[in-house]
Amino acid sequence: MYGNEGSSDKKSLKAAFDRTVYQVVGHGKRNVGVLQQAFSGIDGELDSDMYGMGPSLEAFEANMAGVLGKASAVFFPSGTMAQQIALRIWCDRKGTKRVAYHPLCHLEIHEEDGLKELHGIEPILLADKDRLIGLEDVQQLGEDVSCLLLELPQREIGGQLPPFEELVAISEFCREKDIKLHLDGARLFEVLPYYQKTAAEVCVLFDSVYISFYKGIGGIAGAILAGEPEFTKASKVWKRRHGGDLISLYPYYLSADYYYEQRVGKMDLYYRQAQELAEWYNRCHQMKTVPAVPVSNMFHVHADVPKERLEHSLVEVYRETGVGLTAVLKEKADGGCSFEVSLGDRYGEVPKDRMQLTFELLDQKLRGESL
Amino acid sequence: MYGNEGSSDKKSLKAAFDRTVYQVVGHGKRNVGVLQQAFSGIDGELDSDMYGMGPSLEAFEANMAGVLGKASAVFFPSGTMAQQIALRIWCDRKGTKRVAYHPLCHLEIHEEDGLKELHGIEPILLADKDRLIGLEDVQQLGEDVSCLLLELPQREIGGQLPPFEELVAISEFCREKDIKLHLDGARLFEVLPYYQKTAAEVCVLFDSVYISFYKGIGGIAGAILAGEPEFTKASKVWKRRHGGDLISLYPYYLSADYYYEQRVGKMDLYYRQAQELAEWYNRCHQMKTVPAVPVSNMFHVHADVPKERLEHSLVEVYRETGVGLTAVLKEKADGGCSFEVSLGDRYGEVPKDRMQLTFELLDQKLRGESL
Repeated sequence: MYGNEGSSDKKSLKAAFDRTVYQVVGHGKRNVGVLQQAFSGIDGELDSDMYGMGPSLEAFEANMAGVLGKASAVFFPSGTMAQQIALRIWCDRKGTKRVAYHPLCHLEIHEEDGLKELHGIEPILLADKDRLIGLEDVQQLGEDVSCLLLELPQREIGGQLPPFEELVAISEFCREKDIKLHLDGARLFEVLPYYQKTAAEVCVLFDSVYISFYKGIGGIAGAILAGEPEFTKASKVWKRRHGGDLISLYPYYLSADYYYEQRVGKMDLYYRQAQELAEWYNRCHQMKTVPAVPVSNMFHVHADVPKERLEHSLVEVYRETGVGLTAVLKEKADGGCSFEVSLGDRYGEVPKDRMQLTFELLDQKLRGESL
Repeated sequence: MYGNEGSSDKKSLKAAFDRTVYQVVGHGKRNVGVLQQAFSGIDGELDSDMYGMGPSLEAFEANMAGVLGKASAVFFPSGTMAQQIALRIWCDRKGTKRVAYHPLCHLEIHEEDGLKELHGIEPILLADKDRLIGLEDVQQLGEDVSCLLLELPQREIGGQLPPFEELVAISEFCREKDIKLHLDGARLFEVLPYYQKTAAEVCVLFDSVYISFYKGIGGIAGAILAGEPEFTKASKVWKRRHGGDLISLYPYYLSADYYYEQRVGKMDLYYRQAQELAEWYNRCHQMKTVPAVPVSNMFHVHADVPKERLEHSLVEVYRETGVGLTAVLKEKADGGCSFEVSLGDRYGEVPKDRMQLTFELLDQKLRGESL
């Protein structure tokens, strides 16, 4: 939902955001410095990987397999590629080109229907757009479904999570019905503090797992797909078919490794900061967060104010305080607007008095506003 | 044909090659230093591209479109992805999922049948494995073919080229028959000195063009697909479907830009050096090059000696001279063996007396050998 649509409104808000001294979201600018920093300490003599092979790549894959508690892991240039391939393998295994996922699944709304156009796979959309998939939804699936994809947290509804016990029950049901369970774990590390589980303790419920390196980890790009060796071996064949078996992927996996080591230990901090920031928003007139209490480093803010009005107020607040809250707003069907918040390294840099001033000013401006 | 199969023979030859002081092929080691060098002069504040958009990416694409004489160009992570997509677009345009290409086309032998498995496209193999596609082969095509792919030079047979006049005739025939002509120009810049043409003068014969940045250009990875705006616009949709629309591709296109500027002007030098090196091989007992006189920076060497024997001799020559000729040998059905040679920056670093010594020694060792 938060795509890269261009508009002059968005640009002026983004311009004001970019001019602020402090920004409460993210890790910092996505610029060439991110790559230069990751590679500044790496020996230039280190050999490139070659078409998916090579010691440095295989060491990274083995490390990630261990973290996820899976026997094998393969690095992919993108999650789009990794997840389509995972579902294709499970469909071929069962002989049924039907899978199930949430209506706001990445594959359904951000991938130009690659799953259907390239793989001929038909998705069943489970649950409503504005709520999580629950055990009851899953229990309606028949055995003619190859795979159920669950996204933890469900990003497009603010990053919500089911109780861990419900995950366990869903996993058990799927095993009974011979439905493979795939984890869209783009933000898996971000939910571990809430679940109070290790990555492996979550992943054991799933037959295959995808994780990303440019959300909470803040790398440049890239993904890991993990599972049994037979599964990952098949995924490499499909990776080549998709054109993802590049001669060199080291710009991505070496930087992924670097930022993983830097940030995987900070997920609990980001989670607590997200809860703190959500409280600021929830004390503001016309604003509320979804979820009300975040369960990861992310949440959505919904405002009962037209997009243009909130943008106008935000631009003023950014100018007066030097604190940037968001660079993008999204119009809602009810006339209000919303935006996504993801916490990273920058939140800790904002002085508390500036935060207070920012939300006081914003609250004042919104007191006179309504739909 | 020169894939990444592992064998202990190959490894010991490769180990001996890696220990040599001078190496007659390539630009140098594919290691992290290649990336570090390309980025050492780039401002860290330069913004990343975002999902296929952004000023630095669009400037590079516009520059390449200009070089190729096409209205539009799109950067892809791989040629595998770019070329499947080009053929898919032409098939959809005509409503016929049939294309024609050489039996040793990259899509036929190196891509795990992605074209068939993902796109359901049926290829017609034109010409024999050991010769170029000629006008007569093309004239046998019916109108139920959407696209003909020509690779210049035809890599798997040593990098051979048709006369330019024959290319013109093939292009005219295809236009008459409403068959789109696609250029696999992985090594396009490398053949321009032989043709004495600009890239645009070659590309005008083709409806769509792919070029690569890690052959003669020596970049890290990546490709450009160029054509009319309607074509490239469709290619971006398919790029997203394939999982190639990464949030950040700058590690590839910024380094492609850097090495393109460094090396595009050296193609004539590499071409003349390839001719010189081929003469050395052709004066050796049991050895001959294909083509006999190279038409680009590459050729193949065929030896009437079993692979194990030639490897043994080469390892000795490398040790005695410090000059490495090839890291890989390939067994042939006739009992002999062959290898690929691609000239780059390293050839000019080899002292002439060392070259002479190397080939004298190799010739001596091969005088006693035969099949």
